[in-house]
Amino acid sequence: MNGHASQNNRSGSPSAPSPGSSWRVVPTRTIAVGDTEFAYRSYGHPGGVPVVFLHHLAANLDNWDPRVIDGIAAGHHVIAFDNRGVGASGGTTPDTIEAMAADAIAFIDAMGLTEVDLLGFSMGGFIAQVVVAERPELIRRVILAGTGPAGGAGIDKVTRVSYSDSIKAALTGKDPKQNLFFTRSANGKSQAKAFITRLKERTENRDKAVTVTTFRTQLRAIHKWGTQPPADLGTITHPVLVANGEDDRMVPTSNSHDLVERLPNATLRIYQDAGHGGIFQEHRQLVATAVEFLDS
Amino acid sequence: MNGHASQNNRSGSPSAPSPGSSWRVVPTRTIAVGDTEFAYRSYGHPGGVPVVFLHHLAANLDNWDPRVIDGIAAGHHVIAFDNRGVGASGGTTPDTIEAMAADAIAFIDAMGLTEVDLLGFSMGGFIAQVVVAERPELIRRVILAGTGPAGGAGIDKVTRVSYSDSIKAALTGKDPKQNLFFTRSANGKSQAKAFITRLKERTENRDKAVTVTTFRTQLRAIHKWGTQPPADLGTITHPVLVANGEDDRMVPTSNSHDLVERLPNATLRIYQDAGHGGIFQEHRQLVATAVEFLDS
Repeated sequence: MNGHASQNNRSGSPSAPSPGSSWRVVPTRTIAVGDTEFAYRSYGHPGGVPVVFLHHLAANLDNWDPRVIDGIAAGHHVIAFDNRGVGASGGTTPDTIEAMAADAIAFIDAMGLTEVDLLGFSMGGFIAQVVVAERPELIRRVILAGTGPAGGAGIDKVTRVSYSDSIKAALTGKDPKQNLFFTRSANGKSQAKAFITRLKERTENRDKAVTVTTFRTQLRAIHKWGTQPPADLGTITHPVLVANGEDDRMVPTSNSHDLVERLPNATLRIYQDAGHGGIFQEHRQLVATAVEFLDS
Repeated sequence: MNGHASQNNRSGSPSAPSPGSSWRVVPTRTIAVGDTEFAYRSYGHPGGVPVVFLHHLAANLDNWDPRVIDGIAAGHHVIAFDNRGVGASGGTTPDTIEAMAADAIAFIDAMGLTEVDLLGFSMGGFIAQVVVAERPELIRRVILAGTGPAGGAGIDKVTRVSYSDSIKAALTGKDPKQNLFFTRSANGKSQAKAFITRLKERTENRDKAVTVTTFRTQLRAIHKWGTQPPADLGTITHPVLVANGEDDRMVPTSNSHDLVERLPNATLRIYQDAGHGGIFQEHRQLVATAVEFLDS
């Protein structure tokens, strides 16, 4: 795969990493996926198997923690994209995780990639599970963070919690991620502020905000995922790293334990005094663990 | 009334204005209204008929534009309060405008006031209409801003617009009032920023944020107001000043025209390139007009 990626880089192929090593400045590019232009950013260490990042509910490209994505990009080719209907990508967001996974596969194919690693956070982790089940040969390794299996405990409550916390955020002038992603301890509050500040490090060429329509459609997809019958995860024999905070209000942490019990080749990392955004809060540990996992 | 208010001032009665002339620093006090402590701020020019401010959906004391309230307090005794269940006030927010009006009357009575002027903005304007109809002898003059009559056109859509814009604000990291209160013109956007900055001028001893439960209950009350049969406004013979922006997305401006047609003694002021927050945007004009109206 190294040869393929290097060749892409030399030939200016769509997947080739943009020069520069910082998420703060990596340019946003677009690629036609069928009739639809998808926005993406490709950067980091050229060669090797690219790591494709799959984003969370309400997220656009600017929602990736610079410490996490730069940390992995230091030694890996990293590609993040806005799925259909999200941020600067065209099209209409579909209302099922399965259709979002089909769009993610179409993007990876359009990029000319034949083997990738996945890092899926929250809703992105739902999508990653479907991608790897649908196209096992396309995927080498998977990182599932702050996420859970289809039908997982409490995922049907994401809609209520997301709406309620978004209204609360509007009433208090705060970012909803403060309460949705972090614990209410003094450490959690301080970590939330640091994370939200990091998300603003990129000041130029920021992505378009997710629309209310896309947000609502994503919530419908998440609700269906949370209420549908469990999938057979035993068929996914890929190495999987599962990570989360110990106190996740959105996708309860029991789902992470459930995933490692049911995935044949999975490892678990749980962070103390951390919530849904545990991998962002504990970015140093996460990056070290992820790099070791991807390189092993 | 001057003598009465002066006496209150000398005796340290609950209604007496706190020393100092700036909304930025006026202390928040509490008074028992029945079994419930209501939070309020009383300041401004001692003597005369006090002007009682009635707040909008989702608002606490800190949502009054310092320019508007200081502008009126320069020559008038001004009292603003959090109604039941709002901000720092105790109790549970009722789900009808009529019950909110009963609470407002109970507050005015508890303050020992026997004649007041009212300034009601948006939901506060709904409440003001009920207060003046229920207790006409208690009220001298009324300012109705960004508001409309029971059953008024489009008021039933406040719930949808408020939820949608609150979610949008959470997704974009903006204050929902930017789109709810101002036009989308360059001037409107600039005025929105200036207003939102003014609301942060008070940095110490700020009020408690409105809870999600209170917000939802207020929306139910507003929805009922918007769908109930029209009241006979012909019985309200008090002088009334009606003011709004020309392009109000929340309580459509046609409601202001409707009010002045049906109130026997009403005057209208409509501000150009302004929305629901027209009286805040055009605070210089509003204060000049309001002071002239209150003193006439």
